[in-house]
Amino acid sequence: MMPDFEKGNGLVPAVVQDHRSGMVLMLAYVNRSAWEKTLETGDAHYWSRSRNEIWHKGGTSGHVQKIVEIRLDCDRDTILFKVEQIGGAACHTGYESCFHNKIGRDGSVTLVGKKIFDPEKVYRK
Amino acid sequence: MMPDFEKGNGLVPAVVQDHRSGMVLMLAYVNRSAWEKTLETGDAHYWSRSRNEIWHKGGTSGHVQKIVEIRLDCDRDTILFKVEQIGGAACHTGYESCFHNKIGRDGSVTLVGKKIFDPEKVYRK
Repeated sequence: MMPDFEKGNGLVPAVVQDHRSGMVLMLAYVNRSAWEKTLETGDAHYWSRSRNEIWHKGGTSGHVQKIVEIRLDCDRDTILFKVEQIGGAACHTGYESCFHNKIGRDGSVTLVGKKIFDPEKVYRK
Repeated sequence: MMPDFEKGNGLVPAVVQDHRSGMVLMLAYVNRSAWEKTLETGDAHYWSRSRNEIWHKGGTSGHVQKIVEIRLDCDRDTILFKVEQIGGAACHTGYESCFHNKIGRDGSVTLVGKKIFDPEKVYRK
């Protein structure tokens, strides 16, 4: 069984969840070759829509995502990766999770969650 | 702060998570009016891509999703809804979560998770 890549013009969204805490870390997109690379290597690979290339998450920062479990939803158009997040943070801003903006029903924003690293230091090579 | 609806041609994916267990229940799409309806009513609303209409999740089955918390990701192109799932199952197949297919790295499938209701009974009116 594999994702239905036809449905989303070759791209299927992948929800990424910490396998221990259950925290939702991020969402990214997977095409057929990112899917194959992920199964082959055990590291999460995505398709970068901004750079138009295969993206080995953590390739620059070292913060790779080790695949612990893969799930597909009922109609095979969404993937769930349960991962071990190396370095403890999935977001390029240094936060543990990309979902660090809590929105009130009045539209207000509260920053939540832990900042694990300083992106200035991690991405400055 | 609100989602960046321009980016995805008016639609932004929403990851739906059980607020207590942390289980990822489903993924659906939200447009501006579904977003507004959700904030206004406190029940999750989506845009149905197959029916091309606003979808009040649980409108037919009674299994609505009560919004407990809303998060936006770092670039505002993905929503996270933490919900109380009325009826205990998010999937139209009767499973607690839509992500009930566990995929092995060899492509094998194992059905996981609990079937909570019989869809034949719930949707037959």
